[in-house]
Amino acid sequence: MRLALCLLCALATGAHGAEPPTFEMSPVGWVRKADGKTTIEIEPRYRPAMLGLDQFDSIWVLYWFDRNDTPEQRSILQVHPRRNPANPLRGVFATRAPVRPNLIALSRCRILAIRGSTIEIDEIDAFADTPVLDIKP
Amino acid sequence: MRLALCLLCALATGAHGAEPPTFEMSPVGWVRKADGKTTIEIEPRYRPAMLGLDQFDSIWVLYWFDRNDTPEQRSILQVHPRRNPANPLRGVFATRAPVRPNLIALSRCRILAIRGSTIEIDEIDAFADTPVLDIKP
Repeated sequence: MRLALCLLCALATGAHGAEPPTFEMSPVGWVRKADGKTTIEIEPRYRPAMLGLDQFDSIWVLYWFDRNDTPEQRSILQVHPRRNPANPLRGVFATRAPVRPNLIALSRCRILAIRGSTIEIDEIDAFADTPVLDIKP
Repeated sequence: MRLALCLLCALATGAHGAEPPTFEMSPVGWVRKADGKTTIEIEPRYRPAMLGLDQFDSIWVLYWFDRNDTPEQRSILQVHPRRNPANPLRGVFATRAPVRPNLIALSRCRILAIRGSTIEIDEIDAFADTPVLDIKP
């Protein structure tokens, strides 16, 4: 019986070795755009993580290219930069393209104001309602 | 019958609204340390994503604090910086602490050499065999 279970296990994990590990994330906040202002709205339960953020002029904002979160988009490994076919193909690790295996985006943003759990920033190259993953000084 | 299913659905997603979305990632490579060298070993299937990387002196390396990937560690929202109780508590978004809701780490690394799917870098503040999530110029 044990052997049978082990064989099933081997089949489940594939003939070429163990499946790669997976890591799971949920948004800590959201990019909002309204009234000509760009803000990051931190989820209320994560507000304690903002303590001391007012000491910084700028932050790294890590967010998720959620509109490209399909197996097809995540399997694209080379692109023509700026979607221009005249630009030679480049690997996504050598570009900032919004398609990549793990859809993490990274922007340096200037803090204009902090009100409650809302961080007003100068600008960010992200759609409204994009999920935010992390904030770092 | 439909109503019953909807009620079940409401119970499953909690009384306070929908569950937050989750995003899944797998490593694109690994930090390796051997023979006094620090390298990033890209998974063979992601090697096409490295095309053009040799044009850069430095890269952003995004990796996962996998040793802290427990619900307890991920629920820590405030820390004493550098684990020194004399430092006042700070929110994790105002520190680079390796405990945070989403365990993404970020380092700027200098490329020393690229050989096949291996990128030799100057140094990185990560344990050997740490999973790498993304590389950006």
